Amino acid sequence: MTEAVEYDVVVLGGGPAGENVADRTRAAGLSTALVESELVGGECSYWACVPSKALLRPVLARSEARRVPGLAGAVQGPLDAEAVFAHRDEWTGHWKDDGQLDWLDSIGAHLYRGHGRLYGIRKVAVTSPEGEHHVLSARHAVVVATGTRAMVPDLPGLAGARPWTSREATSARRVPGRLLIVGGSVVAAEMATAWQALGSRVTVLVRGSRLLPRMESFAGELVAEALTGAGAVVRTGVSVEAVVRDGSTGPVTVVLEGGETLEGDELLIATGREPRTDDIGLDTVGLTPGGWIGVDESCRVDGHDWLYAVGDVNHRALLTHQGKYQARIAGAAIAARAAGTELDTARWGAHAATADTAALPQAVFTDPEAGAVGLTLDEAERAGHRVRAVDHDLGKVSGAGLYAEGYRGRARMVVDLDREVLLGATFVGPGAAELVHAATVAVVGEVPIDRLWHAVPSFPTISEVWLRLLETYRG
Amino acid sequence: MTEAVEYDVVVLGGGPAGENVADRTRAAGLSTALVESELVGGECSYWACVPSKALLRPVLARSEARRVPGLAGAVQGPLDAEAVFAHRDEWTGHWKDDGQLDWLDSIGAHLYRGHGRLYGIRKVAVTSPEGEHHVLSARHAVVVATGTRAMVPDLPGLAGARPWTSREATSARRVPGRLLIVGGSVVAAEMATAWQALGSRVTVLVRGSRLLPRMESFAGELVAEALTGAGAVVRTGVSVEAVVRDGSTGPVTVVLEGGETLEGDELLIATGREPRTDDIGLDTVGLTPGGWIGVDESCRVDGHDWLYAVGDVNHRALLTHQGKYQARIAGAAIAARAAGTELDTARWGAHAATADTAALPQAVFTDPEAGAVGLTLDEAERAGHRVRAVDHDLGKVSGAGLYAEGYRGRARMVVDLDREVLLGATFVGPGAAELVHAATVAVVGEVPIDRLWHAVPSFPTISEVWLRLLETYRG
Repeated sequence: MTEAVEYDVVVLGGGPAGENVADRTRAAGLSTALVESELVGGECSYWACVPSKALLRPVLARSEARRVPGLAGAVQGPLDAEAVFAHRDEWTGHWKDDGQLDWLDSIGAHLYRGHGRLYGIRKVAVTSPEGEHHVLSARHAVVVATGTRAMVPDLPGLAGARPWTSREATSARRVPGRLLIVGGSVVAAEMATAWQALGSRVTVLVRGSRLLPRMESFAGELVAEALTGAGAVVRTGVSVEAVVRDGSTGPVTVVLEGGETLEGDELLIATGREPRTDDIGLDTVGLTPGGWIGVDESCRVDGHDWLYAVGDVNHRALLTHQGKYQARIAGAAIAARAAGTELDTARWGAHAATADTAALPQAVFTDPEAGAVGLTLDEAERAGHRVRAVDHDLGKVSGAGLYAEGYRGRARMVVDLDREVLLGATFVGPGAAELVHAATVAVVGEVPIDRLWHAVPSFPTISEVWLRLLETYRG
Repeated sequence: MTEAVEYDVVVLGGGPAGENVADRTRAAGLSTALVESELVGGECSYWACVPSKALLRPVLARSEARRVPGLAGAVQGPLDAEAVFAHRDEWTGHWKDDGQLDWLDSIGAHLYRGHGRLYGIRKVAVTSPEGEHHVLSARHAVVVATGTRAMVPDLPGLAGARPWTSREATSARRVPGRLLIVGGSVVAAEMATAWQALGSRVTVLVRGSRLLPRMESFAGELVAEALTGAGAVVRTGVSVEAVVRDGSTGPVTVVLEGGETLEGDELLIATGREPRTDDIGLDTVGLTPGGWIGVDESCRVDGHDWLYAVGDVNHRALLTHQGKYQARIAGAAIAARAAGTELDTARWGAHAATADTAALPQAVFTDPEAGAVGLTLDEAERAGHRVRAVDHDLGKVSGAGLYAEGYRGRARMVVDLDREVLLGATFVGPGAAELVHAATVAVVGEVPIDRLWHAVPSFPTISEVWLRLLETYRG
């Protein structure tokens, strides 16, 4: 092994979170190395958000074009799957990271390609694909940003059945005739939407009582209703007990609890994520391999003043934009500590990842879209807030009706009755993804309801639902 | 003339502003009469926002469908104008106000159909279409909400040339082969977008240097560029000197300064609005007929403690949603004064129309859409603020690129450097109309930039432009 190369900061993992840490530490003048074993840009760029949205946007645009006069007849029939795949391939850079490398160069970060492992305190060992070894030492911080992978449950027959995970579901080049999806969360709901529109007959098998279980219940209900309307089958309360697949290209059979069997041409397992921490040397610094890495509000690991974890791997919020947010916070904290300046780790301070728990936004690109920020009614009540939920039928807002004929949707805001501020909001309906940010600003800004009364939505936008929600709240 | 019928509140004009005053005063338990000479629901419902958006949404949906893969080929060719007109006719209730009447009944307001005129202090005389006369007296308040009409300039030949105004442009049932539009503001830009897509060859004649002169200059520039791309002609710095039209159905000729002539099949005059106050008895209470009616922050007329004016007619902000906002404020003020309770007329108080000047939002449904709130850079500088404008190319935001291939757009936020809050923001691009409300909440809520840093936009939404703007601002 060669002598250690010293950097101010070493980042393990070059997904969006790792990249953003590097961006911030480089901006602060700290020398920074980034270690990546696959593609710089990470899961999001190649096998998650980006390709999934590239697949989904044509579905949503078609759905919206069908809901206006003068166009409806022109956009029936199936999507041109080949054209959509080609578009998706463009957006993933054909699974090459050249563009990201240019950007890394431009900020002056040093890339090490290969598998990185912690190697005791402030040290990282990298093994390149060619078998070369490097030891990096970090003057100020090592940041773990290795993310997650799809968790494939230990079911009889599943491992040998070559199931799709989110990676295959976002990168496949052939439309399966019948697609079985196990799971009910965002990946399951989005991929059901995409593949049903691309021509598969989709069946979604949800163990729980609804799709999108972490959102207000009407979100999953409206999405399930639309999926069903599009020809998919959504079954809730079903549990998969075993999977059978013979040969390498034949159909796959799922055995449900109770013995019922279902056959498909492909099987997507979308039942959760697990941290990519099993082989990154956590044991060399007293942490547990394979586990999530707990951090404080600055994203630093307790008891290790040089070790940070950002993005999925810290399990605070498994969303690209929150990983990037944590990276900005952690980058600022590393820079401040390196400079010996005081940190502001109070709630909403410059060095405190506060939104992760108080104002987590999410946009789900199903048809209809679902977007939410902050606490659901249940979450707010469980957290002990005295709250009131105010609902409004989005389809009754003029701007929504003008946007799409037969608009179906719903909005809810959750108000803290003691402070008279918003704790959360949920919007479901065509175009809902872009409605969330106004609520995010309101929640994060803790803007009082009386002041929101002066925030006038333009007529006739869908955003006018804000007026209806506030009118309802004020009685 | 019959004996006066007494109400707590008499509202002159049943457009959105008048309706909303009535809604608020009825909610406060005040008996309320509404006088309307045309259709309850007003200009907005029949000849402005609603029919214009019914015409425009198919244009925008088509434009967006063309910008996704797998659909582009299916949505070429002209819009089905007949289908779009039928849709527009549905949205205007075929120019009948039955739906509005049901709503008035439901809140218990009393409708007088006919022409209403002030008749001295606290009195309104109504002449019905059948020639009946009523005198209404108002215990607490008379509210003028008679709105505006298109202003047709005094040009040689124009009056006899049967020009379209916003009314004809939003209600026409035939697509003119060539449509000349005089003006550059919202009506001109939106109607150019609609009619060009419906099949007219549109020429827009703008006296000033650009379209949408009240917004940041890039708004009008991007809209003009897109109109030109769609086949329309946009000419700036041209002045119409005369109009010639012979016969009742022939072409119309416009004579420009310098002598050049242009021929069209119809001519839309969209050069501004004038108040509908010339024949409402303003002289009987010492005000000037035909003028705008100045009001204080509670929308009350100075020197007349019983007289209010809301909506276009007070010239604070000629937008439906702001008229409704003023109506909510004025309704609350009338109710508070009637009850003898104290008013809160401080900035952002319950009885002070503050957003009219500080946080006026607007959405323009051109292709691309343009949305803005608060002050432009010029306005902020002229108001004496120490400001910085931060711009970002919306097309460089991943969420925008995924939304529409070749996305063209731009965003600007104007930051008050002394208080570190937003004074205004502008968004231009597909889907931009729904981006405004987040900025409205930020401006109205006076949310500090440091706090906005925690308002994370979801990836990959168009709203992620917020992150780019804030990153740029923070350097």
